[in-house]
Amino acid sequence: MKRILTTTLRTLPRRHTTLLRPLTNHSRIHNFHSTPPTPQDGAASSSSSSSSTNPQMAFPCLDALETRTSNLLNNHTPVKKFSSGSGPEPSYTTGPHLTYTSTSPLHLDWGGTLPTYTIAYETWGTLNNSASNAILLHTGLSASSHAHSTPSNPSPGWWEKFIGPGKALDTDKYFIICTNVIGGCYGSTGPSSIDPSTINKATNGSGEPYATKFPILTLLDMVRAQFSLLDNLGIEKLFASVGSSMGGMQSLAAGVLYPERVGRVVSISGCARSHPYSIAMRFVQRQVLMSDPNWSRGHYYSSIPPHIGMKLAREIATVTYRSGPEWEQRFSRRRADSTKPPALCPDFLIETYLDHAGEKWCLEYDANSLLYISKAMDLFDLSEDVMRDMRGRREEYAVRRDGGGGDGEDEGGRCTLTLPEEAYQEQEEEAETTATTTAAQEETSTRKPPKDLIEGLKPLQNHKVLVIGVASDILFPAWQQKEIVDALKEGGNGNVKHVELGEDVSLFGHDTFLLDTVNVGGVVGEFLRE
Amino acid sequence: MKRILTTTLRTLPRRHTTLLRPLTNHSRIHNFHSTPPTPQDGAASSSSSSSSTNPQMAFPCLDALETRTSNLLNNHTPVKKFSSGSGPEPSYTTGPHLTYTSTSPLHLDWGGTLPTYTIAYETWGTLNNSASNAILLHTGLSASSHAHSTPSNPSPGWWEKFIGPGKALDTDKYFIICTNVIGGCYGSTGPSSIDPSTINKATNGSGEPYATKFPILTLLDMVRAQFSLLDNLGIEKLFASVGSSMGGMQSLAAGVLYPERVGRVVSISGCARSHPYSIAMRFVQRQVLMSDPNWSRGHYYSSIPPHIGMKLAREIATVTYRSGPEWEQRFSRRRADSTKPPALCPDFLIETYLDHAGEKWCLEYDANSLLYISKAMDLFDLSEDVMRDMRGRREEYAVRRDGGGGDGEDEGGRCTLTLPEEAYQEQEEEAETTATTTAAQEETSTRKPPKDLIEGLKPLQNHKVLVIGVASDILFPAWQQKEIVDALKEGGNGNVKHVELGEDVSLFGHDTFLLDTVNVGGVVGEFLRE
Repeated sequence: MKRILTTTLRTLPRRHTTLLRPLTNHSRIHNFHSTPPTPQDGAASSSSSSSSTNPQMAFPCLDALETRTSNLLNNHTPVKKFSSGSGPEPSYTTGPHLTYTSTSPLHLDWGGTLPTYTIAYETWGTLNNSASNAILLHTGLSASSHAHSTPSNPSPGWWEKFIGPGKALDTDKYFIICTNVIGGCYGSTGPSSIDPSTINKATNGSGEPYATKFPILTLLDMVRAQFSLLDNLGIEKLFASVGSSMGGMQSLAAGVLYPERVGRVVSISGCARSHPYSIAMRFVQRQVLMSDPNWSRGHYYSSIPPHIGMKLAREIATVTYRSGPEWEQRFSRRRADSTKPPALCPDFLIETYLDHAGEKWCLEYDANSLLYISKAMDLFDLSEDVMRDMRGRREEYAVRRDGGGGDGEDEGGRCTLTLPEEAYQEQEEEAETTATTTAAQEETSTRKPPKDLIEGLKPLQNHKVLVIGVASDILFPAWQQKEIVDALKEGGNGNVKHVELGEDVSLFGHDTFLLDTVNVGGVVGEFLRE
Repeated sequence: MKRILTTTLRTLPRRHTTLLRPLTNHSRIHNFHSTPPTPQDGAASSSSSSSSTNPQMAFPCLDALETRTSNLLNNHTPVKKFSSGSGPEPSYTTGPHLTYTSTSPLHLDWGGTLPTYTIAYETWGTLNNSASNAILLHTGLSASSHAHSTPSNPSPGWWEKFIGPGKALDTDKYFIICTNVIGGCYGSTGPSSIDPSTINKATNGSGEPYATKFPILTLLDMVRAQFSLLDNLGIEKLFASVGSSMGGMQSLAAGVLYPERVGRVVSISGCARSHPYSIAMRFVQRQVLMSDPNWSRGHYYSSIPPHIGMKLAREIATVTYRSGPEWEQRFSRRRADSTKPPALCPDFLIETYLDHAGEKWCLEYDANSLLYISKAMDLFDLSEDVMRDMRGRREEYAVRRDGGGGDGEDEGGRCTLTLPEEAYQEQEEEAETTATTTAAQEETSTRKPPKDLIEGLKPLQNHKVLVIGVASDILFPAWQQKEIVDALKEGGNGNVKHVELGEDVSLFGHDTFLLDTVNVGGVVGEFLRE
């Protein structure tokens, strides 16, 4: 095992004015280490000294959070416009972009309405005369429309190396459009946008953000909004719909919702329906965020944002973005500074990595956008029964709207819970039902896609579809991409191309789509040229 | 896809006095669903009605947390003795047990000292005259010494079905001892125990809990304490050391620390060194817990415990205890009540499952115990270089203690940070270094155990060792058990038995060791009889 012998000194935060001890070798005991740390080295120096008393542990990471809270409170800048922010990480920033504003309402899958809405977007390449070379590029959860640099915003985009002349998305041939999703915070209408219904009521006419009065969204709602932008741009049919992660889900959804308006479909590290493990991982992130007192049930826009909850949520998310084997190679068990004693604040390199990922993010993104979009991902399921329900609900909502029935106050009030009556009881008996379990496992191991999913994907049965998965992805595991492929094939599609990148090709897990210009980018470019 | 049509009503919490709408079928639209939910059904009924205004979302799960905080504040019972608690989950409760108190100090690997310490333990079976039939059973992170019911505590233990006449641990043949680990909260000395150095200072002599003045612990420290108990019981040599999860780590550690005092070694779903993914998962749990304002940097014993942080930490942990495929079978995408609109509070069955797991746990276990033991797991590494460092530090600490040098105040103060000088920079260039990466990957894919680990496990080279792993375990993945096996074999051990339970045998992931009496229990029983 390799060790890092760092001798760096750092500026210690307030309260901690002690210095690091000089490094000296004690070859008598071991030949490459410095003095063993003082017992409970991570201690406030004010503690009394006694051989039987252990000093109070120090928590510099909590000091730092408290300092940020205090600084935010003192500066007290209302956090409203995320789209104007600029941070150190190109992927999650935005800047000058185009906008399209619809004054027709967007009626959502679960009954909410956006009376007007704006879509932030950027484009690369040139739309041809027949408007037949457009590619709609869908983003992951947290990205802006800035997939690539533009003349008005030269900073690199989140897919900078995948877009350009001769690149995977070839700007010599295609007109590429990328939008910030509805619900986002980079210029498109989302929870941080002003709720127009509050403008009339407010005396000064400025209005208040939607916050958690924003309606529940689905990925299909986001896609519908994107197609109204296409209408506005005069694009009747896309050459291709392309996306990764959440964008890989939307890319399929675009084809299913508008099969006649989509040519080819590329879905990378996505799925046709969210599975319980990824729902679980997103659920814990949301619960952690919502438990930050500064979240204030979503109404933090005139105060400070829930930066601690956001940091923690991002740390959890980051665990799912890469793979264990990659971390094994990259960090192994190395500590940030092995000359110091263990600490409950970041200590191992993997911990400082997660901590840093959370730091970069905690003020970059709108907490409510995260909640709504994350939930929309959980709700995603292209199975026919779910799609049928959705169409049914939409019809009913339309009838209600036409009938002027308002939003249903006359039906005896609203339910406020989706919790079951009884707390969920763990099924302890499972341990003994080996026979039953084995039967169910056999079914799983064959993993034939359910009939409803085959049916749900049938609108794509004549499309050329490329599905890419990554074996080291734990968030969207490779069996989910295989499920898409199998469902399409079972539904009669003979034009499905499936590429699974093994652990010998990529250990970057879910993040592979952001990094691998050869094995992802190359395959996409080839598929579009075919 | 199956759906659950529940029609249950539940008592709504304070603030929400609305009723659920009656279920009616609208067969015109779809033949098995009730009325589509009112737009933004999860809304407080006080909102005004307007077709363009979406009502405020309701958060009953946050209401419930606030209610608990308020109840805890009003009752204001200082939380001190966890060992007397009794909850709904046998695994994590305790009751009458034996205790052994050492008045000699326990000197810890990182320099801390427990001037005296108590070990809670329970036993089953009878120690034979030669004291040669003892099995030391090591627990997972959160379990008490109550592995099996006893005459004085008849409630079932956490390994109830694995212990008894003719069972895996056969009480007709063996004398089985299970302890609560040092650092725990079920009767053994831990952060919730009174710090003896505070008793003299306090006027009433009652003293204060260690809290975060408790010293950093290692799993080796816990094992040393266990062996002082064995000394006290007159047991010179164990017939076997047996454990699962953290206990599987300790079981190996016992053999490595005291090779001449351990006969056979059984390590189930454990590892020889923690890897970055499991460190990451435990790190985020700790950070979430430490961010609960009620944690108060560990000093919550005279106020209310950080029940929200504990609940969240347990929800995250629970994600790692089972497997995605098991959840796919068990919960799939079913919602707790599909007649209601989506909510940010628990909604899908997997979410109510996680929520319930957190609920059961949040007041059951001591937060500081979780932090210290979780950290001890991260620090675990039986590699020879790490063990050599540990021995070196221990010698130095002993020299310091003998020399009366105190805890090193004279060395220029204490450092308080293990953070690196610069925030960790993501290595963006990796995307382009395909060649290098591939070389590194090849090395990983062969996964030869590092030389230092082979060396570190050499004390076990003549022991009979059984290593069990579970393919569906994501917390202690199967390659970690294979690493133990390979390291032992490379070190010359010809008596290693390795069993890996495939996904066709168990989808229960890490929890398999608690559940599978046949494939885990059976193999253990056989190994001990051989």
